[in-house]
Amino acid sequence: MGPVTATGPKQDRSRATRQRLLEAAIACLAEHGWAGSTVAVVAGRAGVSRGAAQHHFRTREDLFMAAVEYVGDQRSAAVRDLLPTVRQILGPARTHLVVEELVGLYTGPLFRAALHLWIAASDEEPLRTRVRELEARTGREVHRMALDLLGADEAQPGVRETVQGLLDMARGLGLANLLTDDRARRERVVSQWAGILDGVLRRPG
Amino acid sequence: MGPVTATGPKQDRSRATRQRLLEAAIACLAEHGWAGSTVAVVAGRAGVSRGAAQHHFRTREDLFMAAVEYVGDQRSAAVRDLLPTVRQILGPARTHLVVEELVGLYTGPLFRAALHLWIAASDEEPLRTRVRELEARTGREVHRMALDLLGADEAQPGVRETVQGLLDMARGLGLANLLTDDRARRERVVSQWAGILDGVLRRPG
Repeated sequence: MGPVTATGPKQDRSRATRQRLLEAAIACLAEHGWAGSTVAVVAGRAGVSRGAAQHHFRTREDLFMAAVEYVGDQRSAAVRDLLPTVRQILGPARTHLVVEELVGLYTGPLFRAALHLWIAASDEEPLRTRVRELEARTGREVHRMALDLLGADEAQPGVRETVQGLLDMARGLGLANLLTDDRARRERVVSQWAGILDGVLRRPG
Repeated sequence: MGPVTATGPKQDRSRATRQRLLEAAIACLAEHGWAGSTVAVVAGRAGVSRGAAQHHFRTREDLFMAAVEYVGDQRSAAVRDLLPTVRQILGPARTHLVVEELVGLYTGPLFRAALHLWIAASDEEPLRTRVRELEARTGREVHRMALDLLGADEAQPGVRETVQGLLDMARGLGLANLLTDDRARRERVVSQWAGILDGVLRRPG
């Protein structure tokens, strides 16, 4: 017999409710910002009673931290799943695909939601400390994933900072997409810098 | 006789009051965010009566738009003034200095303030349209300035997108500085990417 875990219809329903709340929280935050995103608004959007929402998340901060973490992990996992595919692609085409996917992590509703949370957290303890820790952890994971996807060797001098700068650029591109649909310009920047990056990663030193 | 312009002690005082309001507005926005930044708070910080503040700026939006524009223009002008100096520096050292200065545009209180304004504007018309127009104009000016400072020729294929990507990275580095003091990491990324950029701008194609 394996370990006893909570399964069955009741637990499934509870897990589904939790997921609906987390996804509704991201959509709310992306659309209405921090000030407009209360537990009541999220519960309403998820079609869940406010009591049920508070059963899952004790505070508003708990709900939004969990939402950014959950949706972020999901999105990262989807990009990480590309690894077997990109390993079969050679040279510049691999780098281009990987840069495109990494930049894609920062240009959707999740990044928009995360940005609202960062800004709200930037002058509000203890949210600031919690968001900073989550960001540090997420940043390390995306960095490691980027190395794997690019097939880059961090033992080579400069590779670490090269990949960090790439991820900073990805976040900057996400920011530029906040007020306008920046897709066309972004694609040109991604093509150009994927080419540059490919040259750098092949000619280390 | 030249054209008649408003000068004299009264006009000087009025101009000084306006400047104090604009600088106080940036400091407020950077420290307390959009929700905490009212005209009354800014007027108090600037040591100006609320009536005097409203004489200069009809609405809260007018005040903060003018502040981001004024302080942004001042900072850009300070970087542009480096042109005679950087023209006398050759090669990689010039590129390094320029990248450092451009990144510096996005890592102080002004960028923090602008970020609060962008986020507030992202779901609030007509502020969104006004901020977008200001951002587009500022973006074009910084881009042109970056080309001059780097001594880069936009007629060369790819140079436009290379410099755009550099400015996206600068904004991403500014974002990374929002929740933590990111200076040490940023300096390493700037050194690495200044080197990469220098290689690219010298070997166009």
